[in-house]
Amino acid sequence: MVGCALEPKMAVHCVTLSELEERKQKQLNENGDVEEDCSEKFPSVGPMLTSKLGGFCNRKFIFKRLPILQWLPAYEARFLLEDIVAGLSVGLTVIPQGIAFAVMANLEPQYGLYSAFMGCFVYCVFGSCKDLTIGPTAIMALMVQVYVGSLGANFAILLTFLTGCIILMLGLLNLGFLVQFISMPVTAGFTSAAAITIASGQVKSLLGLPGRSNEFVDSWINVYEHIGQTKLWDAVLGFTTIGVLLLLRSLRSKWSLMGKYLALSRNAVVVIGGAALAYYCSTFGSKPFSLTGTVTPGLPPIKLPPFTTVLNNQTLAFNEMTSMLGSSIIALPLIAILETIAIVKAFSKGKSIDASQELVALGMCNIFGSLVSSMPITGSFTRTAVNNNSGVRTPLGGIVTGVLVLLSLGLLTDTFYFIPKTVLAGVMIAAMFFMIEFHAALEIWRTKKVDIIPFMVTLVSCLLLGLEYGMLIGIALNICFVLYMTSRPNIDQALLRTSSGIEAMVVKPDQSLIYSSIEYLKHEVVKRTDKTQVTTVIIDGSNVSYVDSTAAKIFSSTIEELALRGRTVLLWNWNRSVRCTLIRLNKVQFHPLFKNGGLEQLDKEICNESLP
Amino acid sequence: MVGCALEPKMAVHCVTLSELEERKQKQLNENGDVEEDCSEKFPSVGPMLTSKLGGFCNRKFIFKRLPILQWLPAYEARFLLEDIVAGLSVGLTVIPQGIAFAVMANLEPQYGLYSAFMGCFVYCVFGSCKDLTIGPTAIMALMVQVYVGSLGANFAILLTFLTGCIILMLGLLNLGFLVQFISMPVTAGFTSAAAITIASGQVKSLLGLPGRSNEFVDSWINVYEHIGQTKLWDAVLGFTTIGVLLLLRSLRSKWSLMGKYLALSRNAVVVIGGAALAYYCSTFGSKPFSLTGTVTPGLPPIKLPPFTTVLNNQTLAFNEMTSMLGSSIIALPLIAILETIAIVKAFSKGKSIDASQELVALGMCNIFGSLVSSMPITGSFTRTAVNNNSGVRTPLGGIVTGVLVLLSLGLLTDTFYFIPKTVLAGVMIAAMFFMIEFHAALEIWRTKKVDIIPFMVTLVSCLLLGLEYGMLIGIALNICFVLYMTSRPNIDQALLRTSSGIEAMVVKPDQSLIYSSIEYLKHEVVKRTDKTQVTTVIIDGSNVSYVDSTAAKIFSSTIEELALRGRTVLLWNWNRSVRCTLIRLNKVQFHPLFKNGGLEQLDKEICNESLP
Repeated sequence: MVGCALEPKMAVHCVTLSELEERKQKQLNENGDVEEDCSEKFPSVGPMLTSKLGGFCNRKFIFKRLPILQWLPAYEARFLLEDIVAGLSVGLTVIPQGIAFAVMANLEPQYGLYSAFMGCFVYCVFGSCKDLTIGPTAIMALMVQVYVGSLGANFAILLTFLTGCIILMLGLLNLGFLVQFISMPVTAGFTSAAAITIASGQVKSLLGLPGRSNEFVDSWINVYEHIGQTKLWDAVLGFTTIGVLLLLRSLRSKWSLMGKYLALSRNAVVVIGGAALAYYCSTFGSKPFSLTGTVTPGLPPIKLPPFTTVLNNQTLAFNEMTSMLGSSIIALPLIAILETIAIVKAFSKGKSIDASQELVALGMCNIFGSLVSSMPITGSFTRTAVNNNSGVRTPLGGIVTGVLVLLSLGLLTDTFYFIPKTVLAGVMIAAMFFMIEFHAALEIWRTKKVDIIPFMVTLVSCLLLGLEYGMLIGIALNICFVLYMTSRPNIDQALLRTSSGIEAMVVKPDQSLIYSSIEYLKHEVVKRTDKTQVTTVIIDGSNVSYVDSTAAKIFSSTIEELALRGRTVLLWNWNRSVRCTLIRLNKVQFHPLFKNGGLEQLDKEICNESLP
Repeated sequence: MVGCALEPKMAVHCVTLSELEERKQKQLNENGDVEEDCSEKFPSVGPMLTSKLGGFCNRKFIFKRLPILQWLPAYEARFLLEDIVAGLSVGLTVIPQGIAFAVMANLEPQYGLYSAFMGCFVYCVFGSCKDLTIGPTAIMALMVQVYVGSLGANFAILLTFLTGCIILMLGLLNLGFLVQFISMPVTAGFTSAAAITIASGQVKSLLGLPGRSNEFVDSWINVYEHIGQTKLWDAVLGFTTIGVLLLLRSLRSKWSLMGKYLALSRNAVVVIGGAALAYYCSTFGSKPFSLTGTVTPGLPPIKLPPFTTVLNNQTLAFNEMTSMLGSSIIALPLIAILETIAIVKAFSKGKSIDASQELVALGMCNIFGSLVSSMPITGSFTRTAVNNNSGVRTPLGGIVTGVLVLLSLGLLTDTFYFIPKTVLAGVMIAAMFFMIEFHAALEIWRTKKVDIIPFMVTLVSCLLLGLEYGMLIGIALNICFVLYMTSRPNIDQALLRTSSGIEAMVVKPDQSLIYSSIEYLKHEVVKRTDKTQVTTVIIDGSNVSYVDSTAAKIFSSTIEELALRGRTVLLWNWNRSVRCTLIRLNKVQFHPLFKNGGLEQLDKEICNESLP
C-alpha cells in the first residue's frame, strides 16, 4: 500500500497490494499464529507479563535496572574533578535546604539532613539521569507537615517507606510510559513555574526578611508586607552573590581552563566565600548577616521504619497508622513521581528517558531512606539545576554530596553555622533564572501557536494553585487536546469520473474508527454524499486500523442510512481485523460490500469461525 | 491522493496529486483566505462564536431550540390515546416515587410532587426525546439530603435554580458534544447497573420489608437482614403484579387492537387494579397490603427561588448560601447531565441526538421547577422506561403526567392512598428487567472482545460505588483506551527495490504526530531502519494532518538521529500545514528534505512570512 502512493516518475519496483497481503499472510504463518490478525489489536496482558517475567533474569535486564554497570566502567579520570565540584555545590545547597524543609514539615532540623544523603547514594546505583539529585523538597515537606504536626515523626518515616514501595511497584510494572502523556509545553510551563516559585520563595532570605512561605503568591505578599524590615547587609551580600555568580558563569566559555573551573565551582566558591566573610566579621564580634545557625550533630540510627508507634499513650498498629495517613498514601507517590519525571524530562533535552527505571530508582531511594529516618524524598528541582550548572558528569557526584552531608552531621556542623542565608538564596535565585524557559515558550509560539495554551495554563495554575495542581491541570488540558483531535478526524474526499461524468465518491477517514469520532464521521459522510448526489459511495478504509464496538455499530447504521438514501456503498481497502469486526456485528450481509480482490472467501471462513 | 490508491483494473479517471493540490488552492483562493491552510487546524473560537451569535435569530435555530414546533404540527390523532396511556402510567409511577424521594431527601412528602410536574410541562416544549421524563430521582435526592437535613428546604430549592442555570449555560454554549465521549459499552454498563440498582431497591417494597436504602449492596443486605419479616400478602400481590405485567406485555404483538392497548396500558391497569383491591379489602376493614398512604393536598406557591433564607435566627445572603452549598453546585449539574444524557442515548437506539438541546431542556426544567419549590430534577431512568414501555409517541405524554400530578395534589390524594406499595415495586421491577442490556453485552463480546472491559468495569463500579462514580470511572477508563490507541500508532513499512537490490525504506505512520505517540514513533523508526540497513529512509506523511510542538521537536531529533547513522531522509507527501510547522521550528535547513513536486518555493514564501 505504502509504496504505491509514490508518483510514477520514481523508477522503482513498487510492492503491490496483493504482494503485501501475501507477505503479511506469510509472516503470520511463520509466526504460527494465523488467528492473531483477526483478534484484537489491544494489549493482551498475558504474553506481555510472561515476557516481562522471563526478562527478569537476563543480562540486558540487569544492565537496564542497574545503570551504574553502564557508566562506571566507562568512567574517565577527568570526570572526577567535575563530579566532586558539582557534588560539593549540591551538598552545600542541600544542607541548609534540608534543615529548612525539616522545619517546614514540623520535624527537628537534623531530619532534613537524614533525608539528604541516602537518596544520593542509592540513586548513584539505580539512577539513569546524571543531573537528578533526590532528597527533601518543599512540596514533600508541605505534604507531610499535617501528619507530623498532629501525629509525630514516625508517621513521616512510615510514609517514606510506603511511598517508596508504591513507586517501586509502578516502576517494576513498567508503568513509566505514562509520562509520555506529559507534553513539552506542560513540562516547560511546570519548569518555569517551579523556577519562579522557588526564586520567589528565596527573595525573603535574600533581603533578610522574616516569614516562611514557599508558595508564589504568599512569598510576594510576605515580601510586600515586610519590605520595611529589609536588612541592609543581607540585601547587599545577596545581590553581590547574584552578581558574582553571573560574572563567574560568563567565564564558562572564555579564558583558560582556570576560568572554566571557576565558572563550574561558582556555587561552592560564593558559599565558602560568604561563610569566610561571616566568620571574619564574627572575629570582630560583628554579625551583619542572618546565618544558617546551629545544626544538631550525629548520624541517624539505621533501623526498620516504624510499623507501630505510640501516640497519646496508645500503641497504634500498622493498619491503624495507614488508615490515619489516608489518601496521602496515594497522593504522595504520585506527586513524587510527577516531580522527578518532570525534572528528568526537562534535563534530558529531548533524549529518550527510561521512566520506569527512574521510578525504580526513586522507589529504592525512599525505601532505603526510610531505614535512616528520612522523610519522603523526590527529585529536587533546585539542586538538580545546581548540579547541572556545576557541570556534573555522572551520578557519582551524588556520592560526594552524600558524604558531605554525613560529614556535616558528624563533624562540620560548626563550620556550616557561618553560611549566610542570603548567599544560599542568591545561589538559588541565580540558578532559577536560567531555568525559566523563555526560549521554549518562544519556540512553541513560533512552531505551533495553539500549544502556547497548555504552556500558559500550566504556568499560571502552577503559580496560583501550587505546582502539583498546576501540573495536573496542564496534563488534563493537553489530554483534552488529544481527545478533541481524535474526535474530529479529517475526511479526504474525491470524485471518481468516468467519461460519462461523475460516478462515484471516495471518502477516506484519516484515522481509526472510535466511539468519540464516529458520530462526527457519520454526520460528515451523509452530508457530503447528499451534497454531491452520487450514486456510489466508496469508503476507503486504508487508514482504519481499528474499530471499537460503538464505532462498529454506528458505522453500520451509517451504511444503512446511505443505503436508505439510494446510494450503493462499497468498502475499499479495509484491513482484515476491521472487516472481521464489522462482519461479526452484522453477520454475513456485510460481505458483498467489501472489495478487496478475492479476500471475501478467506474472510468468510476466518470470521465465521469466531462467530458464537 | 485518495483516488490513486485504487487498483488499476478500475477504469476510471483518477484525480492526481497535483490536481488535488490545485483544487485545494483554488478553493482557498475562492474563500479569500489563503493564509488559513498554514495556520493551526485547531479550534478558532472567534469565528465559531460569531456564527453562533448570528445564528440566534434565524428560523432554523428557533426550530432547533423549540422541538415542539417540529412535532406538534405533525401530531396525529391516533397518537393521543397512546400518549395519554403512557402519561397516566408515568404519573402513577411518579407520585409514589416523588413522595419516597422527598422523604429520602429529608423534605416533606409534597415536595416530591412539587418536583414532579413542572419538568413534564417544560420538557414538552424544549425536549427532543419522546421517552425522557424529567423529575425527582433517587440520586438527586441523595445529593441534596445533606444540605436539607442541616440547612432546610430553601437550600434544595436554591440548588435547583443554580443547577438549572449551569446546565442551561452549558447547553447554550453547545457543550453537549462532550457526551460523545461516553461510549456504548459504558452506556450499556451504566444502564444495566441502574436497572439492577433500582430493581434491587424495590425488592424490599415487594416483600413488604422495612428499610429505606436504594444502593445495590445496601438493598440486598437490608433484604437479607429482614427477610424473616416478609409480609405474605404484600409478597403475593407483588409477584402476582410482575406475573400479570409479563403476561400483558406478551400480548403486545399478538391478538387484536384491544390486546395491544391492554399491553401498552398494563402499568396503569395493575396500579388501578391494585388500588381497587386494597379499597375493596378496606371496605371489610381488612388491610393486607402496605399502602402509599396520605399525601398532603394543595398546589405549591409560585414564587422566585429563595435567594436569602433564615437559619437559626440568622439571615443568610445569596453568597453565604452558595458558599455553604460548596462543590455540590458543580457536582449536581454534572450528575444531572450524565443521568439525562445516558438515558437519552440509551433510548435513542443509535440515532444521533442533539445533546446540547437536551441540556437546554434540562436546564429550563430546573429553572422553572425552582419557581414551584422543586428539588433538583433530572431524567428518571425508571419512569423513562415505563414511558417507553407504555408506548409513548411524543413528549405530549408529559403534559398528562404533569396534569395528573397537579390533580393528585389538588384532588386525588385520597384516591392514591390505596395504591399498594408492592404493586408499584412490581411495576418498577418488571420495567427494569427489560432494561438490563444482556443483548448489548453479547453484541459487544461478539464484535470486539476488549470492549467488554469498560462494560464490566462500569457495571461493577456502578453497583459497588454508586451510579455517578461508576459512570465516571467507566468514562475515564474508556478515555484511557483512546489515549493508549493514539499513543501506539501503526507504522506501515515497505522496501523499495531497484533492479540492483534493496535501496530505500518507506515508513508511514497511520496518524498525526502528537506528543503522546512521538516517542514510540521515534523508537520504532530508528529500530526498523537499523534492522534493514537501507541508505535512504522515506517518511510518508500522507496520514499526518497535524503535528504539535512536542512532536515537531522530537520528530526533528529523529531525523537528526537517522542522519547521524548515515541515512538519507526524505519526507514524502506531507501536507502544507505540517511542513510549515516543521520548517518554522527548524528554519530553512529542513526544506530540501521535502519532496512534493515543485512546492518547495511556495512553502518557503508562505512559511517564511510567518516567521518572527
